[in-house]
Amino acid sequence: MLCNLLQWVQRIMNPSESDSRKPIGIFDSGVGGLTVLKQMLSCLPAERMIYLGDTARLPYGTKSRETVVKYSLKNASFLVGKGIKCLVVACNTASSLALDTLRQSFPIPVLGVIRPGAERAARLTRRRKVGVIGTMATIRSKAYEDAICSFAGPIEVISVPCPLFVSLAEEGWTQDDVTYRVAERYLSPLRQRDVDVLVLGCTHYPLLKPVISSVMGDGVALVDSAEEVAVQVGAVLDEMGLRNKGQGSPESPKIYMTDCSAHFLELAEKILGFPLTDFEYVDL
Amino acid sequence: MLCNLLQWVQRIMNPSESDSRKPIGIFDSGVGGLTVLKQMLSCLPAERMIYLGDTARLPYGTKSRETVVKYSLKNASFLVGKGIKCLVVACNTASSLALDTLRQSFPIPVLGVIRPGAERAARLTRRRKVGVIGTMATIRSKAYEDAICSFAGPIEVISVPCPLFVSLAEEGWTQDDVTYRVAERYLSPLRQRDVDVLVLGCTHYPLLKPVISSVMGDGVALVDSAEEVAVQVGAVLDEMGLRNKGQGSPESPKIYMTDCSAHFLELAEKILGFPLTDFEYVDL
Repeated sequence: MLCNLLQWVQRIMNPSESDSRKPIGIFDSGVGGLTVLKQMLSCLPAERMIYLGDTARLPYGTKSRETVVKYSLKNASFLVGKGIKCLVVACNTASSLALDTLRQSFPIPVLGVIRPGAERAARLTRRRKVGVIGTMATIRSKAYEDAICSFAGPIEVISVPCPLFVSLAEEGWTQDDVTYRVAERYLSPLRQRDVDVLVLGCTHYPLLKPVISSVMGDGVALVDSAEEVAVQVGAVLDEMGLRNKGQGSPESPKIYMTDCSAHFLELAEKILGFPLTDFEYVDL
Repeated sequence: MLCNLLQWVQRIMNPSESDSRKPIGIFDSGVGGLTVLKQMLSCLPAERMIYLGDTARLPYGTKSRETVVKYSLKNASFLVGKGIKCLVVACNTASSLALDTLRQSFPIPVLGVIRPGAERAARLTRRRKVGVIGTMATIRSKAYEDAICSFAGPIEVISVPCPLFVSLAEEGWTQDDVTYRVAERYLSPLRQRDVDVLVLGCTHYPLLKPVISSVMGDGVALVDSAEEVAVQVGAVLDEMGLRNKGQGSPESPKIYMTDCSAHFLELAEKILGFPLTDFEYVDL
């Protein structure tokens, strides 16, 4: 670990031009993290990106810390082996449970989605009452709660797991009467407690924004971690002198998946809004 | 493969008494297959049983054939290594996609849930119109369709994937208004086509029997593969002289899982209706 830290410090002090031309690596438990990739492509248009979706082992949100850490290390090792300059953990569950281990294991900056979303929520709330929705594992970890309060002191954080939202988004029932009823039930404790900010703490949830927003009402700001993380990645690259200054349009993102059933490929193209031109299966 | 076949033939001709005292192995992608274990415990009370739930990699139902076959081989190897006399694949998706490969790979009888359920459906239908519901992968494989028609000639089989049913069952919303609405939508093509038998082609679906039955109406018989497979396992053990003739009450089933989050353990005890007294985590 000390050795990794020294390598990293050395690199921060002397980033070479070739380092800045390296790609950014992003992983998620599946295709939901493509919402993060999409935001990053639009905020960081000169950067090359490699995305890995662990579709063979998804979802992470119902599984234990040990299993999520094990899979996260496998994913990160694969991307680090591709020579990335920076790692983005797009999955909220992996960000909640595995970020420290990943930072200790690899000599590159590792960014998760929790802190960017938490900071934005803490800045936005007027009533100092923030709602967080996510998978069972993310909510149980209290990662958002800790991050919000460590950034802005005591804020009331009300957290609710919404496991059915992932399945509803994957089924494509994004603006459906059933989804509306499920949302009403899950979100009712947040409405009762009068939160004014709601963190969408799972990469699938932005797909349900219209329903969630209509249930919560206009007075509640929705925080999409995908948007926040893209901004913070840019800031970290600048700080470390790793931003790609090269000109010209970048290559399409390279996308790897550990399982490539027709279902995932269709969903991936739907989320990205363009066809997967550079896609490869990988057995991890 | 020839070598495996010869070993098997030899064992069928001369099953030793010690063979009959070996346990039966059962695997599933998760905890849903405990509905099969429960039926087997009640139909085969003298047998020892070992159950493996691949909770670290579930669900299988959205994944590709290659991935499902790979995981099924890992699960089966683990159980065969424990000295089982017979393997039951409790997962409908793995039964649909991996049964031939498993049979070619191991010198013991391998039973899936498709054939028992298909045979029962073919015997029950009067109008020769059978509905099948299951995961995306099971329905896409056409395994039930092929098995029903190979057993009883041309029967009209209408198959519908119901991916949300698993999440609804896991959320515990088994008799809920939302579940009723989802069921009405999924099952409407089956009602329109006037099926008189419906196969519950996923181990989670029996948990939703009350809702499914109320949507389909009294005239439609529901076939639960868990019940059928227990009867067929008994028949195969008798045929092969492998039934345990020993007296006395058997040991509790040994249960292994590849991930043991609190969520899965709670669900497992709820399905079984008794506490997990002999449980172990295994890293596959």
